[in-house]
Amino acid sequence: MFEDRIRLASLRDRVMTADDAAKLVGDGMVVGMSGFTRAGDAKDMPIALARRAKANPMKITLITGASLGHDSDKTLTEAGVLAKRLPFQVDTTLRSAINRGEVMFVDQHLSETVEFLRTGQFGKLDVAVIEAVAITEDGGLVPSSSVGNSASFAILAEKVIVEINLAQPLAFEGMHDIWIPGQRPHRAPLPIVDVRDRVGTNVVKIAPEKIAAIVITDTPDSASNALPPDADTQRIAGHLIEFFQHEVSRGRLPRTLPAIQSGIGTIANAVLSGFIESPFEDLTMYSEVLQDSTFDLMDSGKMVFASGSSITVSQAVQDRVFKHLERYRDKLVLRPQEVSNHPEVIRRLGLIALNTALEVDIYGNVNSTHVGGTHMMNGIGGSGDFARNARMAIFATKSIAKDGKISSIVPMVPHVDHNEHDVDIIVTEQGLADLRTLAPRERVNLVIDNCAHPSYREVLRDYYRDAQRYGGQTPHALERAFDLHVNLRDRGSMLTGK
Amino acid sequence: MFEDRIRLASLRDRVMTADDAAKLVGDGMVVGMSGFTRAGDAKDMPIALARRAKANPMKITLITGASLGHDSDKTLTEAGVLAKRLPFQVDTTLRSAINRGEVMFVDQHLSETVEFLRTGQFGKLDVAVIEAVAITEDGGLVPSSSVGNSASFAILAEKVIVEINLAQPLAFEGMHDIWIPGQRPHRAPLPIVDVRDRVGTNVVKIAPEKIAAIVITDTPDSASNALPPDADTQRIAGHLIEFFQHEVSRGRLPRTLPAIQSGIGTIANAVLSGFIESPFEDLTMYSEVLQDSTFDLMDSGKMVFASGSSITVSQAVQDRVFKHLERYRDKLVLRPQEVSNHPEVIRRLGLIALNTALEVDIYGNVNSTHVGGTHMMNGIGGSGDFARNARMAIFATKSIAKDGKISSIVPMVPHVDHNEHDVDIIVTEQGLADLRTLAPRERVNLVIDNCAHPSYREVLRDYYRDAQRYGGQTPHALERAFDLHVNLRDRGSMLTGK
Repeated sequence: MFEDRIRLASLRDRVMTADDAAKLVGDGMVVGMSGFTRAGDAKDMPIALARRAKANPMKITLITGASLGHDSDKTLTEAGVLAKRLPFQVDTTLRSAINRGEVMFVDQHLSETVEFLRTGQFGKLDVAVIEAVAITEDGGLVPSSSVGNSASFAILAEKVIVEINLAQPLAFEGMHDIWIPGQRPHRAPLPIVDVRDRVGTNVVKIAPEKIAAIVITDTPDSASNALPPDADTQRIAGHLIEFFQHEVSRGRLPRTLPAIQSGIGTIANAVLSGFIESPFEDLTMYSEVLQDSTFDLMDSGKMVFASGSSITVSQAVQDRVFKHLERYRDKLVLRPQEVSNHPEVIRRLGLIALNTALEVDIYGNVNSTHVGGTHMMNGIGGSGDFARNARMAIFATKSIAKDGKISSIVPMVPHVDHNEHDVDIIVTEQGLADLRTLAPRERVNLVIDNCAHPSYREVLRDYYRDAQRYGGQTPHALERAFDLHVNLRDRGSMLTGK
Repeated sequence: MFEDRIRLASLRDRVMTADDAAKLVGDGMVVGMSGFTRAGDAKDMPIALARRAKANPMKITLITGASLGHDSDKTLTEAGVLAKRLPFQVDTTLRSAINRGEVMFVDQHLSETVEFLRTGQFGKLDVAVIEAVAITEDGGLVPSSSVGNSASFAILAEKVIVEINLAQPLAFEGMHDIWIPGQRPHRAPLPIVDVRDRVGTNVVKIAPEKIAAIVITDTPDSASNALPPDADTQRIAGHLIEFFQHEVSRGRLPRTLPAIQSGIGTIANAVLSGFIESPFEDLTMYSEVLQDSTFDLMDSGKMVFASGSSITVSQAVQDRVFKHLERYRDKLVLRPQEVSNHPEVIRRLGLIALNTALEVDIYGNVNSTHVGGTHMMNGIGGSGDFARNARMAIFATKSIAKDGKISSIVPMVPHVDHNEHDVDIIVTEQGLADLRTLAPRERVNLVIDNCAHPSYREVLRDYYRDAQRYGGQTPHALERAFDLHVNLRDRGSMLTGK
């Protein structure tokens, strides 16, 4: 039974129900679960934990790679299981609980979470729950559609619960590259010098006796909920491709572009899809999440290789890709998220980093996380790992939202995830602003004229005129810096009350 | 003549006056000058450029390592030479011109400037002006008390003007380690795995024919103007040392601490001096600037090795150290600033990064640069290179300034250089707040109770109570978030008007 999935025979007697395995988790524990942007998450264990909590109320610290699928965060939130959650989430129910102050959410750079675990910052990791497609003859775990933090969770945890997912193809075996940094201060360089490099092992190596339970499941990954490209995202893609061509023509970018990182979500995915119609060839990615656009680019022959930490795709692309994984075997690799997001590699390769902004201010500071400066949307994710260390940090957004009630270009962002030191390019459907080498005062007109929606340009210019009365490197009229946000909060539109 | 200083005989006929050499610089040029935190800056050329500009008005882009000494930035500002200045400065006159919007100041992470030059972002580098203690037999430049960006400036510039400084001891020869990264995307790992590692060359290698002029000078570096430790900085040091002991006792830091980075200025220098009285031994530094405290720690036997990009010390320590450099030959190395500040090495070594904050908000966001959110103080310097990538990012400040008219703990910082994702520890003379693993709401009381001055605690608590009405991951009452700053701007004190 499951001979091909549990190849170390001595482990087969640890197969049990998710409800039995859930008994290994108790109140106050720190639990690490696999899952990165809905891919490769444990499917049955979160639900079993929620069931167990109904009879035995418990609060845990839940650490994942990134977001989970299958409404797991919703179910856990409703069961009151989550005391603390990190480092990323996208769930509506959990988000509300976070914003009511009921769940403590630690919004972390995705490359850093396991460093905190390694130095004991969260105490010991009690249990790891890891989805795998198989356990090898010597007890190694073969991850599925994501690696995320799974490898380090399994290595660091006292006990490991493995979810063997029969719905995940065994063909994933061999597509991972597990590299774990050594203990500091005697850590060696991370030897990746090309996106294609394999520097680790195919499996997660742990002592088999740590595997305390094996749960068998048969549930596929949740499909991506990214929206298809629309006219605005196509315009954004158009501006970017034109810009890249310009940079190549001036000798500032190589003809084969540097490897691309692309953030999670509709806009980044749609923008990347725009490359299918571009003149660029032999594209590569060094990214966290590989979305539909990655496979569309591969299938169109535009992209030759992609390195990521997860595969998060729509149902249609899941059907197309997962059934023929072997076609992509030489074209992709999945790595731990601290490797996909490692500052060392990001700087060395000189990535183009493309991430989504919630809003941007006239000086180029970016808010990626906090609606109205207060309410958490999803989290910073890996955008900070990439933007700080990349060759070129691009932030894309539509210039307005909610039928124009919200402008994505504002006088001052009320929460800063990426500051003017890290933001190179702003692009909206209106156009693109190249902020590199510009002082703050030189940026303002460029951002307003090129990126803001016409219906907000005069409001922004008026703010800047007023702000200049106070002088400075970065003029601001502090008493009115957030007027647009207060309008939105109190009256439902940034423009109301003008 | 100068046989020991200009060893390649064919170059000796390029010796000329600074005024003659200044003729190589013309209007509109991009000029790179040596100098990092007042150390190893060109002494005569800036003054000669200012003189030349009186007869031949010109505007240049001036790029340095970091700040210059000898009022050079003042003289150049007064002569109207500076159109654009980067990446850091500390001069009162220049600062005023920046804040009036007359000089465009690009405030950059110190590790990134030469990457921008390499990709042609500023166009070509027309002229490099480099202080050296000698030119070797094959035309190599031996830097003096700083490396900064000098090596890459000399390599990238069309023409190089060398200032041979007779006041800088020849004993500097051999104390530098010049490593230059290869062109991306085929860049190799930076092989430093220990602060002591030497991975490059002793000299800056350039084609001798690029050396267009040699100017002889005899002016020592400007002395550091850091103030000596006082009761408050001693208290800050005390809190930090106690904290480190606590971390060691819990097994979260090694007994020999990780290598330390310490920012420029009075507070960081004074705090580091506090280690002389600590139980810690065998300390090492991997930092940008080596200040008095570094040599005091070495002389007291507490520190065994320091890696930096410059030596910026008081007159007393200059006298003590520069006359006996050979004593320190095995204990220190000076590197290019992109190596001293390289994300790759900072993350690999797992540094403790200690930098100064101008102000901090109740959620742990840090403003390092903009007084009142608008007026540039000095610049972000290397603090962003370190804080993002270090094992532990500490920000120190006194809790109040100007006799209590200013609180360094505020409801919301009006400029964010380091956000809550990067700020691990806040320390003032009042106490220390360890923000790691805490959600924003968990941080507030810790920051207020441990770090804020008692005279501001109730104001801050009142703000937070009010802000919670709006809910959110990070509650804020946007309409009053900057009340303290507006009070200060309009009435001279944050507390006025309460």
